[in-house]
Amino acid sequence: MTFVRFNPWQSNHKKPFGALLVNSLVHLSIEVVSEFNKEVYLVIHKDFQETQKIKMENGEGHFYTYEYFLNQGKGLYFYHFEIQSFIGDQIINEFFGASEDGGAGVFYSSETLTWDFQITCYEKEETAPDWYRESVFYQIFPDRFYNGNPNEVVNHPKKNSFLYGTKSDLPLYIKDNQGEILRWDFFGGNLKGIQAKIPYLKKLGITALYLNPIFEAASNHRYDTGDFLKIDSVLGTEADFQALIDELHKNDMRLVLDGVFSHVGQRSRYFNVDGSYGEQEGAYQNIHSPYYSWFKFTDYPDKYDSWWGIKDLPTIDKANESYRAFIYGEKDSVISKWTQMGVDGWRLDVADELPDDFIQGIRKTLDYSKEKVLIGEVWEDASNKISYRIRRNYIFGDHLHGVMNYPLRNAIISLLNNELPPEKIAKSLMKLYENYPKEVFMNSFNNIGTHDTERILTVLNQQTKKLNLAFGFLMSFLGSPCIYYGDESGVLGGKDPDNRRFHPWENGQQEIYDLCQKWIHTRKNHLPLIYGDLSLFYNDSLFGILRSYQGEYVALVINPNSNAFLIEEPLTFIAEETKISEDLNQRLLNQRILDNDFLFLVNGKSVNI
Amino acid sequence: MTFVRFNPWQSNHKKPFGALLVNSLVHLSIEVVSEFNKEVYLVIHKDFQETQKIKMENGEGHFYTYEYFLNQGKGLYFYHFEIQSFIGDQIINEFFGASEDGGAGVFYSSETLTWDFQITCYEKEETAPDWYRESVFYQIFPDRFYNGNPNEVVNHPKKNSFLYGTKSDLPLYIKDNQGEILRWDFFGGNLKGIQAKIPYLKKLGITALYLNPIFEAASNHRYDTGDFLKIDSVLGTEADFQALIDELHKNDMRLVLDGVFSHVGQRSRYFNVDGSYGEQEGAYQNIHSPYYSWFKFTDYPDKYDSWWGIKDLPTIDKANESYRAFIYGEKDSVISKWTQMGVDGWRLDVADELPDDFIQGIRKTLDYSKEKVLIGEVWEDASNKISYRIRRNYIFGDHLHGVMNYPLRNAIISLLNNELPPEKIAKSLMKLYENYPKEVFMNSFNNIGTHDTERILTVLNQQTKKLNLAFGFLMSFLGSPCIYYGDESGVLGGKDPDNRRFHPWENGQQEIYDLCQKWIHTRKNHLPLIYGDLSLFYNDSLFGILRSYQGEYVALVINPNSNAFLIEEPLTFIAEETKISEDLNQRLLNQRILDNDFLFLVNGKSVNI
Repeated sequence: MTFVRFNPWQSNHKKPFGALLVNSLVHLSIEVVSEFNKEVYLVIHKDFQETQKIKMENGEGHFYTYEYFLNQGKGLYFYHFEIQSFIGDQIINEFFGASEDGGAGVFYSSETLTWDFQITCYEKEETAPDWYRESVFYQIFPDRFYNGNPNEVVNHPKKNSFLYGTKSDLPLYIKDNQGEILRWDFFGGNLKGIQAKIPYLKKLGITALYLNPIFEAASNHRYDTGDFLKIDSVLGTEADFQALIDELHKNDMRLVLDGVFSHVGQRSRYFNVDGSYGEQEGAYQNIHSPYYSWFKFTDYPDKYDSWWGIKDLPTIDKANESYRAFIYGEKDSVISKWTQMGVDGWRLDVADELPDDFIQGIRKTLDYSKEKVLIGEVWEDASNKISYRIRRNYIFGDHLHGVMNYPLRNAIISLLNNELPPEKIAKSLMKLYENYPKEVFMNSFNNIGTHDTERILTVLNQQTKKLNLAFGFLMSFLGSPCIYYGDESGVLGGKDPDNRRFHPWENGQQEIYDLCQKWIHTRKNHLPLIYGDLSLFYNDSLFGILRSYQGEYVALVINPNSNAFLIEEPLTFIAEETKISEDLNQRLLNQRILDNDFLFLVNGKSVNI
Repeated sequence: MTFVRFNPWQSNHKKPFGALLVNSLVHLSIEVVSEFNKEVYLVIHKDFQETQKIKMENGEGHFYTYEYFLNQGKGLYFYHFEIQSFIGDQIINEFFGASEDGGAGVFYSSETLTWDFQITCYEKEETAPDWYRESVFYQIFPDRFYNGNPNEVVNHPKKNSFLYGTKSDLPLYIKDNQGEILRWDFFGGNLKGIQAKIPYLKKLGITALYLNPIFEAASNHRYDTGDFLKIDSVLGTEADFQALIDELHKNDMRLVLDGVFSHVGQRSRYFNVDGSYGEQEGAYQNIHSPYYSWFKFTDYPDKYDSWWGIKDLPTIDKANESYRAFIYGEKDSVISKWTQMGVDGWRLDVADELPDDFIQGIRKTLDYSKEKVLIGEVWEDASNKISYRIRRNYIFGDHLHGVMNYPLRNAIISLLNNELPPEKIAKSLMKLYENYPKEVFMNSFNNIGTHDTERILTVLNQQTKKLNLAFGFLMSFLGSPCIYYGDESGVLGGKDPDNRRFHPWENGQQEIYDLCQKWIHTRKNHLPLIYGDLSLFYNDSLFGILRSYQGEYVALVINPNSNAFLIEEPLTFIAEETKISEDLNQRLLNQRILDNDFLFLVNGKSVNI
């Protein structure tokens, strides 16, 4: 039998690690041991291009190597290996490709079944501004945070809407028997309320805000934009918004907005289904409307393309030039207007629905200003995402700086709820680290919960100790962490709308706030947690994160189990052993980690945080 | 054939007219014409007593008479006539009884099918206080009238309730798929708001208010009482209520409350299903609760008697002595407390559900104070109502002063929407006039719409001219008229909850307000409309109300049709012709009434109002 070893996470097999710039050389080296004469081929192709089959050279020992030149531009390269063994008159072909979990490869019985290894090849280092790299974000669903008016009077409640009687009421959709929303429900949080809570957020350690949509809309979530150029009057005025930006900046804090450009509300200035924007406006009212060409009607005016078939959200034709000009192409475009007011970045809603050149257009407009960031809503590995049959270019340069890191959230939850062994979790994260350009991975917008997920404390079965570990994991990982409003106070909640309760200002859990604050400060006090390289390690029970930077290192070792664990053997490092990892393993020996507890080590010394 | 005439509305047939005091004599006289020898019998029985068959005396002409002594106490006497004709050897029996419409009797083919005429026999003249007789009421659904707070801040919104976004939002029940209320909806009208609008109401001509329930409750209608001794905090405080009473009295206005004593809310101090009143309170929480005996549990605590099977409204055992003491029997009973604060009367919700002696108990407590009134919610003819197989004693004395007059509303609508001929409508009202003790009928609480009906303007297909006639009819009839809040401003609305919109302070219809005000003032300026005897007259097209008092008379002649009508022949008076009616008919000859218009005559002279 043939014995083969190839693990792209190890430098003796693939060098350099991970994604590479265009026109780089990548050194691939596969170990093949057998008693027969053989030839080893690298079978490689650029995404959607022809396959090359390249004979590898037998170098030192059992290693077959090839130095491949990534000269076909940005994008993905996929490869596996073919081993031809000459046994008497026969030629036996064996195929060696990627395993599902990542890391060390595996044999496949046929070439067509063989999974390829991936090399991401990018065009440009997407180094985000320092403020972003060093940020600790806080996501606010504006209706549910705080009302800054005297007596908490709600600004201009919308016609045919409901306001919650008390701030502790649980959110409720008001629907008819067909499940259609009858009226939208509001708590009445507003921009003045956010501004009023800046001292609270600073004390927690927050340095940047991500706001769910704030433009005029019918709903409480405002993903059904009504007017891209207007602050929703329930939230306040443009002056309130300017005041909020100015106050944030005065406090060295930043602001990222939610950009919802794939669709609009049917009750919008652009579609205007009910005529509330006047009879001359809107595609539905008037085929001579300036917005008529933005929509695709199959039978005017009542049949039209809409997002996921939801009639409330007519889809926009993002190829339409006048729409592009309106959103980012004109001097007073949507992106320009708000960016010029001081907005520091945008998170693009449903990035999968936006054509690459549309996103690139936004990025270009943003880049006219300094220190702006552009993040995308992508739920999976963004390096190889296919949407609408097209491979997406999110992370190859001049596109998104980074994406929302839901895979990280999944990993943290799987670990803490003991759903997967630590090894699998480590590999899943390592795969992302491998597939993303490092700068892009460092730009990840990390979360353990958002307005689209169940509340983390609910998912963790209300176990504060596990929540503490989740905060620790989030704050120790590569990328910019973001706390979903209220998670710092132990807010519970199942799926939408229960995950959008009003912030419990009167009765938050101080104990949880203290844990969150402590982890945020820990991150800020240790540069390796922000800028450090990432290693992951594990055994059957424990999961470890190692971050090293400029000769220092910080390690977090998590015991997600209900029993204490005594470390009697070295833990396994997912990539290579290094001096640091050896040192760390030595220091860990004979350490005991209590149930659902952790060790935090700085340069090998256990530290209380 | 036999020719028979008997119409109890004519004094040559029955004398005196209508209901009679106990131990009165009633003179009955039936005209029977035939060629045969005959005997005529009065067949009469007191309600649920044995039938007497009394041979009548052949007096003057064809009249057979009997003077019956109503000596079996208060209640109903029912009678018909039997005519025995001797034809040769044969005896033919014929039966003559009441017609369905009222007035002149008809033959029946068998005695068992024969409908009886009714004589209501009462014990006491229920003369209500003058203030009540002279009142023009205004019914307020407190949540929907006016918010008197600065910036219209809502007082203490309830936990898990919704507030309407704007005052012009249409009311909506927030229900789950099973039709259960999920959350209650509030506009936030309050007592201060009512007080603030006293000048508005006075200008309209209102002299008394009837408020839907105001005690602490979970819902917006508050028929699910939570605490009988507490003003609902959304409406204000007890001090606010005292201030409202004082301000009303200072303005010579009166106040009637809604007494809801048949059931309570499951979320009440007495039942306390959710423990919100504490663990020691409430029958559901604790079988040692002082309220445990008020309820009938079939399987404690989850199965219990409730109103119409609505679990939200546990029925109270009104025979329970501690409940009776609490409601009216103690010095600080519910009735005592609020009456002593200055409440001028009560409207008893679902009077049909309250035992006679329970209502009598309330009345007795009320009568300790002067000038109080007690009105019952009864939807039909209250004289002969049977509920739960028992004939009710509402109007025989020391019980209710009067009842809500929904039959009047039905008559007005049938007339104006041309659903029934004027004759039928006149007869239906005359039957009530006949069956009720006159004082009780004068105490009728008349309406053309309440919180339990569609809005009058909606029912009248939004025809302002018909609404004008409805106001005229209401203000010209016997009994105390009550305007449902907003009807004076042309508020529309279908069934509950649409009939409970917020008062349109900003955009009421001034034209309708003016009509309403004009009719109220007309009533107040003409004593016959308040105290006058009632006659009704009609032809195929027209309907007339004649009110005469102390030598003066006022008549309203309504043309409910879409064509003008020229009066060329005398109209028919439903009861007897009198000098006044003859005079009136002469005056009406050759008068023309436009479509959906009216004539208003004072002592025979047509008057513009």
